[in-house]
Amino acid sequence: MAALTRRWNDLADGNPLVRFVDTCLRGAAQVLLQNNPLTGLLILIAVGWGAIDNGLPRAAVGAVVGLVVGTVTALALRVDPASWRQGLFGFSPLLTGIAVPTFLADRPLMWLYLVFGAAATTVVTLALNAVLTRWGLTALTFPFVLTTWALLLAAYQFDRFVVTTRLPPRLPGGQAAAGGTFDWDLVPTFLRGVSQVFLIDSWISGLLIVVALLVNSWWSALFAVVGSVGATLLALWFGADGASLDKGLFGFNAVLTAVAVGVVLHRPGVLVTAYTLFGIAFTLVVQMAMATFLGPLGIPVLTGPFNVATWLLLLPGLRFAATSSPERVE
Amino acid sequence: MAALTRRWNDLADGNPLVRFVDTCLRGAAQVLLQNNPLTGLLILIAVGWGAIDNGLPRAAVGAVVGLVVGTVTALALRVDPASWRQGLFGFSPLLTGIAVPTFLADRPLMWLYLVFGAAATTVVTLALNAVLTRWGLTALTFPFVLTTWALLLAAYQFDRFVVTTRLPPRLPGGQAAAGGTFDWDLVPTFLRGVSQVFLIDSWISGLLIVVALLVNSWWSALFAVVGSVGATLLALWFGADGASLDKGLFGFNAVLTAVAVGVVLHRPGVLVTAYTLFGIAFTLVVQMAMATFLGPLGIPVLTGPFNVATWLLLLPGLRFAATSSPERVE
Amino acid sequence: MAALTRRWNDLADGNPLVRFVDTCLRGAAQVLLQNNPLTGLLILIAVGWGAIDNGLPRAAVGAVVGLVVGTVTALALRVDPASWRQGLFGFSPLLTGIAVPTFLADRPLMWLYLVFGAAATTVVTLALNAVLTRWGLTALTFPFVLTTWALLLAAYQFDRFVVTTRLPPRLPGGQAAAGGTFDWDLVPTFLRGVSQVFLIDSWISGLLIVVALLVNSWWSALFAVVGSVGATLLALWFGADGASLDKGLFGFNAVLTAVAVGVVLHRPGVLVTAYTLFGIAFTLVVQMAMATFLGPLGIPVLTGPFNVATWLLLLPGLRFAATSSPERVE
Repeated sequence: MAALTRRWNDLADGNPLVRFVDTCLRGAAQVLLQNNPLTGLLILIAVGWGAIDNGLPRAAVGAVVGLVVGTVTALALRVDPASWRQGLFGFSPLLTGIAVPTFLADRPLMWLYLVFGAAATTVVTLALNAVLTRWGLTALTFPFVLTTWALLLAAYQFDRFVVTTRLPPRLPGGQAAAGGTFDWDLVPTFLRGVSQVFLIDSWISGLLIVVALLVNSWWSALFAVVGSVGATLLALWFGADGASLDKGLFGFNAVLTAVAVGVVLHRPGVLVTAYTLFGIAFTLVVQMAMATFLGPLGIPVLTGPFNVATWLLLLPGLRFAATSSPERVE
Repeated sequence: MAALTRRWNDLADGNPLVRFVDTCLRGAAQVLLQNNPLTGLLILIAVGWGAIDNGLPRAAVGAVVGLVVGTVTALALRVDPASWRQGLFGFSPLLTGIAVPTFLADRPLMWLYLVFGAAATTVVTLALNAVLTRWGLTALTFPFVLTTWALLLAAYQFDRFVVTTRLPPRLPGGQAAAGGTFDWDLVPTFLRGVSQVFLIDSWISGLLIVVALLVNSWWSALFAVVGSVGATLLALWFGADGASLDKGLFGFNAVLTAVAVGVVLHRPGVLVTAYTLFGIAFTLVVQMAMATFLGPLGIPVLTGPFNVATWLLLLPGLRFAATSSPERVE
Repeated sequence: MAALTRRWNDLADGNPLVRFVDTCLRGAAQVLLQNNPLTGLLILIAVGWGAIDNGLPRAAVGAVVGLVVGTVTALALRVDPASWRQGLFGFSPLLTGIAVPTFLADRPLMWLYLVFGAAATTVVTLALNAVLTRWGLTALTFPFVLTTWALLLAAYQFDRFVVTTRLPPRLPGGQAAAGGTFDWDLVPTFLRGVSQVFLIDSWISGLLIVVALLVNSWWSALFAVVGSVGATLLALWFGADGASLDKGLFGFNAVLTAVAVGVVLHRPGVLVTAYTLFGIAFTLVVQMAMATFLGPLGIPVLTGPFNVATWLLLLPGLRFAATSSPERVE
């Protein structure tokens, strides 16, 4: 394994095309804050499988198009080469590339919109990083969230696009937001909570993503699973919508928060574990609040709750057991 | 009086439990930007009286629980001891502790939600202070506002919670937002404007709070009353909803703005007085705008308008007659 | 011409009243980021003509009142004299002064509201500049946008005001947002896209404004026209509402973005042109998204999309062909 890794790295150093592929693969891994091309490859396979399984193969095509367009745009804008090389300009456009074909009807113009959106995601990444660096934070996946929200909200105003979020705009309270029945298939639900990071509803994809994490970091895999389990059980206890619960929709933001907070405060201990568990509950509340806030607009929360919750959890700069500074989030 | 104060302070220095009680009392006073345990005690009495009078005694219990949980959470997170000692980590959780039982139906799970919310308020306080310190500002009561908004919006999505804000979600314009009749009992209305800082609808509580301010700072008491009178009269002139007017709901944000701007720009003069009066009108407009903005979501503005208006009023760093820097707001 | 300019400048240096008039005229020009009293004079004439042509002469009166009140307020608040002299405290209040009589029914109290709003716009300008200076940005016209949004949203809550935005509050998706027919009078539409910067629907005013730009900067005039043409054609292609298209409502934000990005990245080249064209599309998407977001509230986007898009485009601090720093935006 180590020998194979070394050979690949040598190849990437020597050949610009391999280097570009390696950078894109790292970009796929960076969605979950990992810097490893093999993790990225496994994630792309998980996304491909899940997209086909969900009857939405164009989401997998969108992922690759978004990843490549975002990475190339960053190159054209002459960003910091070291950050670029770690895939830090690939992961948000990849997600934009999945979201656009998932939430807009399939038409030729949708693909142009996707390419534009992926390039815009890279510009927004640069902009938000410039803002957040003042507090030692990075933009995480918020450029994807902000850009996709804008693309979907704008699509309502254009005849040529059809929004297919299956979230009819409505005011809160009237009908029961909660409801639907949960069939208590807990383990697949936890794994779907992991796959929903990539807008995929498939426990097999979720399992593959956990494996992808294991390849690079045991701790990340563990935190990811704990995040999904914790948030899902809490949502179940509080009586959240059963159908969404079943799809893993209450797990994915907490998965990301758990990994992010775990990566930053990474010398495990009692206090860090307690703070991460608190962070998982915190992320769920932010997610549910954001869902109500966006309800009248008929657009999904995406990974917005993860970003907001993680920034709020990292900003205090708590010192317990932290060995790295917040700058190392990604 | 001075001798009693000295004895209490000696006691607080010597005994950790008394010190904790003293810190909590200062926390209650800090809602109105005062650092005085006696002021805090009188405020807690005012809240207790008002909660019982309003038929909502659990709001007073919530206040104490929030205050204690928030203060203890700050201790566990090892915050700056000097700030902690002044009660700066008690006042926002105290308000969260009043708001949760006021706006959610009384169930056992609601109390767990309250404890979680109070702890979250302390984390958010640390986060927002870290952001705002770059401009010499502090978070004021915004951590309470943000956390409570999130808790209420999230509660809509959970079967186990019932939102009781009495603000049915609706779009603006359709029905008359204004309406209801005002019965011209001006002085009690002004005092209710003061008590509403703590979500209490009681002129006796308002009077007690004015006395609590007088104990510590004549200027603060004067500015508080001017804030309530000014904003209420302006709302009356512009034709705001009579029923809300009667409850003092158009006064409380201006009370806080007047005290905050008065404390910072504290060498009184013609220009400072003019700016504070302008600030009162400004706060009312921000409050009404925020009420319309939140209307479709069915949640109250809380003290959000005070925070936004005060930040905007302090950011210019105007030099007229200021003897202290904005850092001393709290 | 040069001799006339010199004489006017000498007059302004010597006579305080002429200096004040000159400052106000520069304020009118600064809406389009120009620092030239003649440009400002032509713009005021364009606004006057358009207001009368639109059957809304009070909008032109409001423009002058807002401009003067905002400029005088800045003087009273003792702002930086050099910035004041360039008209940097006049342009946002001028726009507030147009917007208030355009979107609220004509009553005596509306004029008081306008004066208050113009003064508030200056305070908000100082506040936002203090925030944004950390990233080398300025507030652009966002103080106008923020203040006007607040004034309109608040007006819903007051019996004494009537909101006349002709945008009935509604949720997205239900009815077709797009629709209406466009009559393909392209050139007048492009010019109306320019006049809408000042909320005016008149191709003659648009033409006058282009001339006003030409007087000071050929590049600004060119970028303004390119912005209007580009955004309008794109909106047409994507199938935006024909009636709004016809009024130039999809052009004005892109006009401002094109001038702002063009002024900052002002050594023209292939990459800069490409980035500006991208910025025009980006601004249109932000505008449409903001329109959907504000739909439930029944208020217009104003120049909010220009501000948000331009900040996001400038924040990356891209180096291609830039000869000046972002600080020089205005």
